[in-house]
Amino acid sequence: MRKSLLAGLFLCISATAFADEGMWTFDNFPAPVVQQKYGVAVDQKWLDHVRASAVRLAGGCSASVVSPDGLVLTNHHCVSGCVQALSTPQNDYIKAGFSAARRGDEKQCPGTQAEILETIGDVTGTINEATAARAGQDFTRARDAAIANLEKQSCSGKERTHRCQIVTLYDGGQYKLHTYRRYADVRLVFAPEFAAAFFGGDPDNFNFPRYDLDFSFLRLYDNGTVVKTPEHLTWNAAAPKDGEPVFVAGNPGGTDRQMIADELVTLRDVVNPLSLVLNSELRGRITRYAQEGTEQARIGNSALFGLENGLKSLRGQQDALLQPSLIETKRKADAELKAKVAADANLRTTIGDPWADIAKAQIERVAMYKPYYFIEARDGYGSRLYGYAKTLVRAAEERGMPNGERLREYGDARLPLVQRQLLDRQPVYPDLEQLRLEFWLTKLREELTADAPETALVLGKDSPETLARALIQSKLADPDLRRRLWDGGMQAIAASDDPMIRFVRKFDAAGRALRKTYEERVSGPSAAAYERIAKARFAAYGTSVYPDATFSLRLTYGKITGWNYRGRAVPSFTNFAGLYERATGQFPYALDQRWIDGKGKLDLATVYNMSSDNDIIGGNSGSPLINAKGDMIGAVFDGNIHSLGGDFFFDAVLNRTVSVSTAAMTEALIKIYGRNDLVAELTGR
Amino acid sequence: MRKSLLAGLFLCISATAFADEGMWTFDNFPAPVVQQKYGVAVDQKWLDHVRASAVRLAGGCSASVVSPDGLVLTNHHCVSGCVQALSTPQNDYIKAGFSAARRGDEKQCPGTQAEILETIGDVTGTINEATAARAGQDFTRARDAAIANLEKQSCSGKERTHRCQIVTLYDGGQYKLHTYRRYADVRLVFAPEFAAAFFGGDPDNFNFPRYDLDFSFLRLYDNGTVVKTPEHLTWNAAAPKDGEPVFVAGNPGGTDRQMIADELVTLRDVVNPLSLVLNSELRGRITRYAQEGTEQARIGNSALFGLENGLKSLRGQQDALLQPSLIETKRKADAELKAKVAADANLRTTIGDPWADIAKAQIERVAMYKPYYFIEARDGYGSRLYGYAKTLVRAAEERGMPNGERLREYGDARLPLVQRQLLDRQPVYPDLEQLRLEFWLTKLREELTADAPETALVLGKDSPETLARALIQSKLADPDLRRRLWDGGMQAIAASDDPMIRFVRKFDAAGRALRKTYEERVSGPSAAAYERIAKARFAAYGTSVYPDATFSLRLTYGKITGWNYRGRAVPSFTNFAGLYERATGQFPYALDQRWIDGKGKLDLATVYNMSSDNDIIGGNSGSPLINAKGDMIGAVFDGNIHSLGGDFFFDAVLNRTVSVSTAAMTEALIKIYGRNDLVAELTGR
Repeated sequence: MRKSLLAGLFLCISATAFADEGMWTFDNFPAPVVQQKYGVAVDQKWLDHVRASAVRLAGGCSASVVSPDGLVLTNHHCVSGCVQALSTPQNDYIKAGFSAARRGDEKQCPGTQAEILETIGDVTGTINEATAARAGQDFTRARDAAIANLEKQSCSGKERTHRCQIVTLYDGGQYKLHTYRRYADVRLVFAPEFAAAFFGGDPDNFNFPRYDLDFSFLRLYDNGTVVKTPEHLTWNAAAPKDGEPVFVAGNPGGTDRQMIADELVTLRDVVNPLSLVLNSELRGRITRYAQEGTEQARIGNSALFGLENGLKSLRGQQDALLQPSLIETKRKADAELKAKVAADANLRTTIGDPWADIAKAQIERVAMYKPYYFIEARDGYGSRLYGYAKTLVRAAEERGMPNGERLREYGDARLPLVQRQLLDRQPVYPDLEQLRLEFWLTKLREELTADAPETALVLGKDSPETLARALIQSKLADPDLRRRLWDGGMQAIAASDDPMIRFVRKFDAAGRALRKTYEERVSGPSAAAYERIAKARFAAYGTSVYPDATFSLRLTYGKITGWNYRGRAVPSFTNFAGLYERATGQFPYALDQRWIDGKGKLDLATVYNMSSDNDIIGGNSGSPLINAKGDMIGAVFDGNIHSLGGDFFFDAVLNRTVSVSTAAMTEALIKIYGRNDLVAELTGR
Repeated sequence: MRKSLLAGLFLCISATAFADEGMWTFDNFPAPVVQQKYGVAVDQKWLDHVRASAVRLAGGCSASVVSPDGLVLTNHHCVSGCVQALSTPQNDYIKAGFSAARRGDEKQCPGTQAEILETIGDVTGTINEATAARAGQDFTRARDAAIANLEKQSCSGKERTHRCQIVTLYDGGQYKLHTYRRYADVRLVFAPEFAAAFFGGDPDNFNFPRYDLDFSFLRLYDNGTVVKTPEHLTWNAAAPKDGEPVFVAGNPGGTDRQMIADELVTLRDVVNPLSLVLNSELRGRITRYAQEGTEQARIGNSALFGLENGLKSLRGQQDALLQPSLIETKRKADAELKAKVAADANLRTTIGDPWADIAKAQIERVAMYKPYYFIEARDGYGSRLYGYAKTLVRAAEERGMPNGERLREYGDARLPLVQRQLLDRQPVYPDLEQLRLEFWLTKLREELTADAPETALVLGKDSPETLARALIQSKLADPDLRRRLWDGGMQAIAASDDPMIRFVRKFDAAGRALRKTYEERVSGPSAAAYERIAKARFAAYGTSVYPDATFSLRLTYGKITGWNYRGRAVPSFTNFAGLYERATGQFPYALDQRWIDGKGKLDLATVYNMSSDNDIIGGNSGSPLINAKGDMIGAVFDGNIHSLGGDFFFDAVLNRTVSVSTAAMTEALIKIYGRNDLVAELTGR
């Protein structure tokens, strides 16, 4: 792995010809490279068509429009929160699957928002003007105010239908204004049963060969009617070919490929170790909870799903960081760039020593990491009631302030999504709330010690168990109450005797103070320093590089291919026959009865899942896998185990994208689920 | 911390005058240093008296004889397994405490063995002769055979009352024959309730100020009568003084202060991260289980106690390893010694390059680590039924072989303890068995992947849940059945249809093969290499150094003192008044009613817990804290948080030992527990 790692790192800063690396923006796609390597002409029409069909789901996934009637394809795991929210103890759609036979049966997904990118504009100059000659907290504040105001102005008058967002690229080297058509009414059309969508479960997650039907359909609505979408990808159910060029259009969530060695060391030695032990313990608690009964299983397994996925991904990241070659190579790259700056009188003046600033920020970060983590960054540990209360308390205060002075997430341009996620009706499970709050409070006390002032402030003389029990008496599960508190503003919040509201108010000032210090000493100086490093990098290596991922629309190219590892060849494809061979009848390798009954009807040679060497990362889930013609041939749902280091470097030899084929989805829709009507809509026949 | 770390490291290999570092053997105690520094004359009589009063508990703790009638003082946490084993749902002695009013009520602790060191002899020559000119697996085998035979011969004819053990010191630089008087009938006399013994629970563990009554009494019996012990420590309940010199005589379990940097890196990057995530998740599962009901709490909390203690200790170790200064300093020390070897023609020939051998062994270790961990080293993950079955299956096979050729733990000299721990009646909790087995099997599949041959071998087509359910149908909880299988040997094992016996037999050959490979490629070459490094160290630095801890009797010196950390002074003592201030009424800060009622009777100024700078580590729990006169003034029960790096280096500035004072034990025995009779026995009045 060492060799390929080195290759990957240098490619990411200096060239693009040797590997299919890069999460490219649509306004800077290296079409000539693709033309030369794959003979595929990616012209502006191709790009515009794909961009207009690509969908972002605000919760953190990708998707695409696949019919003229607003039908959207994404992963099952991207809608599982919605499927869970729509389920009840009597109707468990996670377990049974969901299939709306008529449009009237399609059900709105709470809190879900779909976004299609319409325009990209460059606003780097405006932001740079606002931040000129500022540093630290001053820099952060000026930048955030400029962003909030630009976002607000740009969507002025079309807030209902549009979202304007400033996307930071190249660590602040560029600021782009993305204007999205937004759809707040997104309805669930079809989701297979969990046993098919996530066959092999956590043991097979991030592994290959793989046999998952990880897809689902949503539909866009506006004003209560179906949205017409003349721009959509063509559904192509032909068998994919080994080696054929493929593209992925989606929203990779975040990468840290430009991160300097000193910060990687903080991740490796401080940030990740804490998250790993805490989330492992939480996983243990929820696993046991899910064994306590049928309803506990329904609730617990849903919570475990995301937790386990995140943990496995973090383990992979950490394994990458623990390879000594990674940090060493980064140190060399840092030193090389630093030397280039030192050798140029002009750069020396404008760039200075941002590496030293980041190193200093690391010391501050480590010193305050645990209080910041428990009181501000991960407070509540996923309790929904706590999250509602914190949003209500903070929003009430922030909304009383001018747009440019607010905490970034409460800017006017962002409030509609905040409000939607707060006010939509979502199930609140008291047992799980109790479990999460107890866990958070116990760990807070354990990690900060019982003698810490933060522990006294949050816990007082209570035990985590009794305090959690008091807090879940909160009535915030009621969306009407949340609406009243939202509308009532500060006055309503101050008058509320809801125990969770009172609890959050007790230490919200402490949380804000920690955040302020963190921004002053850590994130502010770091952001300013990375911006200078980005400028140095532009100066040293030119502009033919791709920016780190930021959950904004990107296009990657590559080919269908397996890989070789430790002398073993992993083929590109699996098929339905392999699924039946792997099924043991025991969870998570148990098939639903309809698959057992349907075996004879299926073409068992149908390509099921496939591997390609596109450069993706979390957030790309649900992205369309597109062939040279621009047709959809699959839905990306995973990476292989080696892809988990992709946060820090792209390993062209081992890093692979995993998709479920359009062919398999078609075959299953017809033969297993009897949804010929959906196939007809997809194919226009 | 960097400065003190450097100090500690160099001291441990070059000098002893600057800090109270060192776990000294009784035959090499630096009495002149102590005389000079503290003005205390530690003469042979003093040493013999303390040695003859010091007790080792075979389960992994220390203790001491404190009355002429075989009364033994140790920690509560050293007997909590016994207290739990004697408890039932109706009589929970963990919760209520145990107090035998008359000798006839004292209850035998299952599996417990107490050992008092009688003689120390040097057998280095004999072992060296047997291993001369051998390497790798050959070396290991010859050494183990020589050890097994020496241990057997030395105790020949007195096996019932004695145990002979070869202790490896200085990584094989010395082999010492320790002859112990062993007592297999050890009875519980007194243990306070858990709420007093472990007040502050896991949050306060390894922290200070501390308020724990972590002590208990056992009594030695032989042939059904009390053992007379004219040699015993004098109970001194006077108030201890800040700065007074103190000694700890006990059995530190193991340190790795001579470990080279390459192996520390394996611990830091491979071994510890896996253990941390796995044990954290298991902790989560058992925590939730313990919340499911009263009986589940009784069973689960007892299991959690050891698990959480181990986890916190491992976190501390890992935090030490993550300090870049530690590995860097070790690398420098390695390089220094290597240079000394290279500079000496004679050493070059006899020592060679053991550092390279260890580095090579690390590569092998990392490659096979997970299979070895799941199939052989941590198989069963603490399931008692699994442990019984593995011992029975292995012992049957091993006992059929000549003593010198067996796996080390089945040598004739070791069988009496194996047999006692196997055959004593111990409670088996089916729920906990299911939980542990399920956990082990789930993690085995997850970490090795479903496609690994080891997963197929152990799990077949079963799920972890169903297989665990089948396995806990085992009847091995019955000690009579275990006795029959033990006595019946291979034939009985082969004929057994017990599901756990069958299960273990299914892959025992695979486990043995992994162990053989591990010994051939990792532990064998490493042991031989460390022995050569030890010889190089002797040649380079002389012999005035102490050996790494090996759970054999050691003596450390120091003084009662607090410490300073980040500008905060931590005082040496706590008192009963502080206990009442800290009590919130909520677990784990809740006092039993007898303490609430007894507050008025207590002298609240009594020193409760105290800090001293002795060099100790896990295994020292229960050690007597001894003053200059050789009197007992406390029972060691913990180290502070900084002491957790003590595995790798002693930090004289921050590393502290925590004890409960004899004064506090006396006060509590009289005023809270009404055990004036015990105090009379202790004081001879």
